[in-house]
Amino acid sequence: MQAGRLWIDDIPIPEPGPGEVLVATKACGICGSDLHAVQHTQSFIATSREVGGGFKLTTDEPVVLGHEFCAEVVEFGQGVSSHYRAGDLVCSMPVLLRSEMVGLGYSDIAPGGFAEYMVLTERLLNKVPEGVDANTAALTEPLSVGLHAVNKASLHPEDQVLVVGCGPVGLAITAVLSMRGFEVVASDFSPGRRALAEQLGAHTTIDPSIRDPLAEMQWSEDGHTVIFECVGVKGMIDRLFATAPRQSRIVVVGVCLEMDAARPLIAINKELSMQYVLGYTPAEFSETLTLLGSGRLNVEGLVTDQVALDEVATAFTRLGDPNTDGKILVVP
Amino acid sequence: MQAGRLWIDDIPIPEPGPGEVLVATKACGICGSDLHAVQHTQSFIATSREVGGGFKLTTDEPVVLGHEFCAEVVEFGQGVSSHYRAGDLVCSMPVLLRSEMVGLGYSDIAPGGFAEYMVLTERLLNKVPEGVDANTAALTEPLSVGLHAVNKASLHPEDQVLVVGCGPVGLAITAVLSMRGFEVVASDFSPGRRALAEQLGAHTTIDPSIRDPLAEMQWSEDGHTVIFECVGVKGMIDRLFATAPRQSRIVVVGVCLEMDAARPLIAINKELSMQYVLGYTPAEFSETLTLLGSGRLNVEGLVTDQVALDEVATAFTRLGDPNTDGKILVVP
Repeated sequence: MQAGRLWIDDIPIPEPGPGEVLVATKACGICGSDLHAVQHTQSFIATSREVGGGFKLTTDEPVVLGHEFCAEVVEFGQGVSSHYRAGDLVCSMPVLLRSEMVGLGYSDIAPGGFAEYMVLTERLLNKVPEGVDANTAALTEPLSVGLHAVNKASLHPEDQVLVVGCGPVGLAITAVLSMRGFEVVASDFSPGRRALAEQLGAHTTIDPSIRDPLAEMQWSEDGHTVIFECVGVKGMIDRLFATAPRQSRIVVVGVCLEMDAARPLIAINKELSMQYVLGYTPAEFSETLTLLGSGRLNVEGLVTDQVALDEVATAFTRLGDPNTDGKILVVP
Repeated sequence: MQAGRLWIDDIPIPEPGPGEVLVATKACGICGSDLHAVQHTQSFIATSREVGGGFKLTTDEPVVLGHEFCAEVVEFGQGVSSHYRAGDLVCSMPVLLRSEMVGLGYSDIAPGGFAEYMVLTERLLNKVPEGVDANTAALTEPLSVGLHAVNKASLHPEDQVLVVGCGPVGLAITAVLSMRGFEVVASDFSPGRRALAEQLGAHTTIDPSIRDPLAEMQWSEDGHTVIFECVGVKGMIDRLFATAPRQSRIVVVGVCLEMDAARPLIAINKELSMQYVLGYTPAEFSETLTLLGSGRLNVEGLVTDQVALDEVATAFTRLGDPNTDGKILVVP
């Protein structure tokens, strides 16, 4: 990808450096951030530079996108102690630990997961548990985002939870909340995504064009209403200020890239709280993969399609106007 | 006050109803909300109607402002059991419990604290402790706002605290934080207000026109930086998003009455949290008065002037462009 253009090209197989492993990608999910990076490359780069940290596209050179991957070990670089053998299925946070950290999928230094081969840092590898296939293991990264958001919400067992928006992030949060025993209410305009939310454990799903889940259901006003905002478009926060019950806690997971306006007076009057969240910790990444292995985390149905490399551009276009799609995997 | 006009008038002495007490006002502070109500009456009324609850000016009839008062008991209404005698100094939350709750100071049903006489609900009265004079007791209400904001911040002993803005609310928070043993950093453009903050216990005060306290000091990035936003003007939140350390907790106490824009992407990237706060609980109001009685809460210097009724309009004008003023009390 360069300047919003997607194409297929032959590039050299990367060489694993000291402490690194060469892997063959088995599956790699398309993430909303990838769509942003393609559709708004220049502003994505500008924003990345401005905020630093979590949003990594800091180059306008060609990059191989893809940061939600599962891969198979092929070869070892120098000094790899190896707990691993060729053929092992592994996952890794999308980071390469070199003198400068490389954000895999947003860098021109090493290819991301839409390449046939990648290099990974050995000590960041997580072995995929027995019985988990590559497609499911590729969900570790987006599900970690869900696990982290739920962890940051510091939930109490008596909390009532609402997930606003059932894209991949909202679905991941739904799956994690359901695993933890919460009765999830989830809202989305798309019938297909509402059906997915139900499959992933949502207790109730609501079409917000018909009724507002916050206006028409009974919600706690004593601090036990927790709203996961997973839409990330302009105006959502102000809308939640207007409709949220008093003392609600809003967890902001949806990434709105623009300046966004809201009426603080309403938030003050209701004593709302907001927790903005990003990413996950290495421990949460590992825990997610373990949960997939144990079968406790139900993700049946979350992958709605898989595409080959020559179908990636079409898949990006399709996801730009989502209807029934959950996660689409690229199988290079 | 009506439609932004302030004048002195003779009105009937209110009659205490059942369970009510007639009191003579001894002192009543001028609050920032009073300034808003006078300067922007129509939008204040519109906003009050829109958000309901805490912001009470819902009439455009003439009202007697004033909701931070200390008063002396004069006479008793029907069925008052009385733990009180004529001459007792009392404070009360600015609420009259009738069939419909009356917000004292923002209602045409009963006068607020800038009247010579008021009626109060007996069971909301708090007796002023021995040794606390009426001027100090009149600070109970604004100090309760500070106590509540600090309580809502759920501070840990190792938290580093910054108070942004040293108007009466920022000063109240400074006094409470200092009482609780925190090393307060406080910032304000006004040298007079910085001096007041120091008198109320601030460890360090900073002029933000010379250096940004968040940019130039060492602040924790592991969730132990807590910022009390006590300015409440447009753009403050976005500025704090840009300058706050990662994982900061921002407590929003300053009331911005307008739509306000900020860049959520920055808040997400830093995983900031926001707690919007309003008012106080009855228990916090009583606790504040008790703390004033015990001498634990130091408010020496917070009252910078007292004015008679015919000086109220001038005092409002002066506070519209604050420089060295802390709290100004009206003594009717």
